[in-house]
Amino acid sequence: MTYRIDNLQYANWSEKIFRQLREGDVDAIHVTISYHENFRETVLNLEQWNRWFEQYPDLICRGEWGDDVRKAKEAGRTAIFFGFQNPAPIEDDIGLVEIVHKLGARFMQLTYNNQSLLATGCYEAEDPGITRMGKQVIKEMNRVGLVVDMSHSADRSTIETAEISERPIAITHANLHSWQPALRNKRDDVVRAVIENGGMMGFSMYPHHLKGKSDCTLDSFCEMIATAAETFGAQNFGIGSDLCQDQPDSIVEWMRVGRWSKEIDYGEGSASAPGFPPQPDWFKDNRDFGNIEAGLRKVGFDETEVAGLMGDNWLRFYDENFAPVITI
Amino acid sequence: MTYRIDNLQYANWSEKIFRQLREGDVDAIHVTISYHENFRETVLNLEQWNRWFEQYPDLICRGEWGDDVRKAKEAGRTAIFFGFQNPAPIEDDIGLVEIVHKLGARFMQLTYNNQSLLATGCYEAEDPGITRMGKQVIKEMNRVGLVVDMSHSADRSTIETAEISERPIAITHANLHSWQPALRNKRDDVVRAVIENGGMMGFSMYPHHLKGKSDCTLDSFCEMIATAAETFGAQNFGIGSDLCQDQPDSIVEWMRVGRWSKEIDYGEGSASAPGFPPQPDWFKDNRDFGNIEAGLRKVGFDETEVAGLMGDNWLRFYDENFAPVITI
Repeated sequence: MTYRIDNLQYANWSEKIFRQLREGDVDAIHVTISYHENFRETVLNLEQWNRWFEQYPDLICRGEWGDDVRKAKEAGRTAIFFGFQNPAPIEDDIGLVEIVHKLGARFMQLTYNNQSLLATGCYEAEDPGITRMGKQVIKEMNRVGLVVDMSHSADRSTIETAEISERPIAITHANLHSWQPALRNKRDDVVRAVIENGGMMGFSMYPHHLKGKSDCTLDSFCEMIATAAETFGAQNFGIGSDLCQDQPDSIVEWMRVGRWSKEIDYGEGSASAPGFPPQPDWFKDNRDFGNIEAGLRKVGFDETEVAGLMGDNWLRFYDENFAPVITI
Repeated sequence: MTYRIDNLQYANWSEKIFRQLREGDVDAIHVTISYHENFRETVLNLEQWNRWFEQYPDLICRGEWGDDVRKAKEAGRTAIFFGFQNPAPIEDDIGLVEIVHKLGARFMQLTYNNQSLLATGCYEAEDPGITRMGKQVIKEMNRVGLVVDMSHSADRSTIETAEISERPIAITHANLHSWQPALRNKRDDVVRAVIENGGMMGFSMYPHHLKGKSDCTLDSFCEMIATAAETFGAQNFGIGSDLCQDQPDSIVEWMRVGRWSKEIDYGEGSASAPGFPPQPDWFKDNRDFGNIEAGLRKVGFDETEVAGLMGDNWLRFYDENFAPVITI
């Protein structure tokens, strides 16, 4: 049995998208439920997911543990795992780490582009590394089983975290900087630090992370994955598509600016192209994972490697990293 | 194997009390973690319990399901189940019912003495019964496995709830009104409505609920239980001691007045005796459950009945009522 997992999506959720997940045989996705939302606002987002679980029980179900992926596949549903792209939901309170894990959060970025209370984001001019609170929060995340995600963090902070963390960390959605030198893509030393410590990286199909952006070819994307596998081994990579399907452009503005600035920040966009860029034609939505699977075969991956990249590697990571450390 | 469960305590928790729970062979307790706290404040109380679970893992553990009582007993610990004496933690948001259940809440009173958004408390002059929101919240509590507790509710509201609720409800801590006619004790028609629908009632050792208050004898208390068992059967009764050990008198004021009044309300006390009354000498703390067990034998209960009253009846109720209804 093999599993198909996409480890990062932030769609404008609807019955249409839940049905597309089923059409695409997607057994599990990790969804962002908070960017800049504080704890109380994040709870409202959780409530919305609870309603969707009630409304669409034949399409989706709550994901908390690796086995929920297996149960979902058996029942013909998609397991939904929660994550945050910013530590905003824990505010300045380390006690909220265990609370949000209990509520189902399984990934939390230490930063979203900017300096946070914990670490430095990839858009800051200086990266002084992990803060005092950051070290404490990483330890607590390790204890409860909340995975550290450094997708939007700066290099030094990421490498330090990979070393400080006693459990593997993740870059849920990014590509190789050597392939497409975007600020959000990861240099080899960053990838190496994460992977050598057992961590995972998910490849992104967000156009700003792709070579040629929206015009990127499937072959080029899969060749980048082949390069990554040759350099670091195939076992610690998977998909983290960063699919933001059906979102209005107001959402990308919320993602970039939140409430931290009164001035607009275009992030990976620009004043002339401020909105969401169009997806490449080989990955429009969740029905297109078959294209990626075919592309991976074409660049020479064997069946075990393809299965690993399409979901089995993330499932192994879920099995090992979501449960609290048992101390007694 | 028999189990010892106290289904209501609100102590000023400390290592001393956790050790006394172990000395008293108490396998599980239901603890009040909120009176008038809103959702955000309740989360802070949950965080405090998380710290205690970390600090005293050899004495206490989190209780979420009936089986956690069995695991606790096997490991020589006391399982701690959470509850609210007021619906304040769900504020005006039905979506918070599932959130607080996910965070471990297993009992919630619909009222604490006063009218709430859901029902009427036992100190109000009029009891118009369950509100529009109350009906919706009872249905949602049934769905997720959060038990309705009517200990501090008025009679009509309680009887209506017993009939409206599709799962059994509880009076976690009160005694028979026919034995001690306190406002908080329950008339036979109220007890009957709860029990005929499969509900449970826990007997209280809070002096204001006892005949003769602090001077109540163990014999009198156990004879009251025998009367209840003769009238309604022994299977749906247990203990809900309402032990408020080591609390300063400022806490009983918080329980009574919260933030709903600027004037003092003495509740079951009086201006001349506003504080916590002294416990009867046969139930000072958690080490004294053996006295009650002996008292129950003395008034004629057989071993199965004694085991049921001391915890097995609550355990059966936990097994049947804490899990969400599976709809698919």
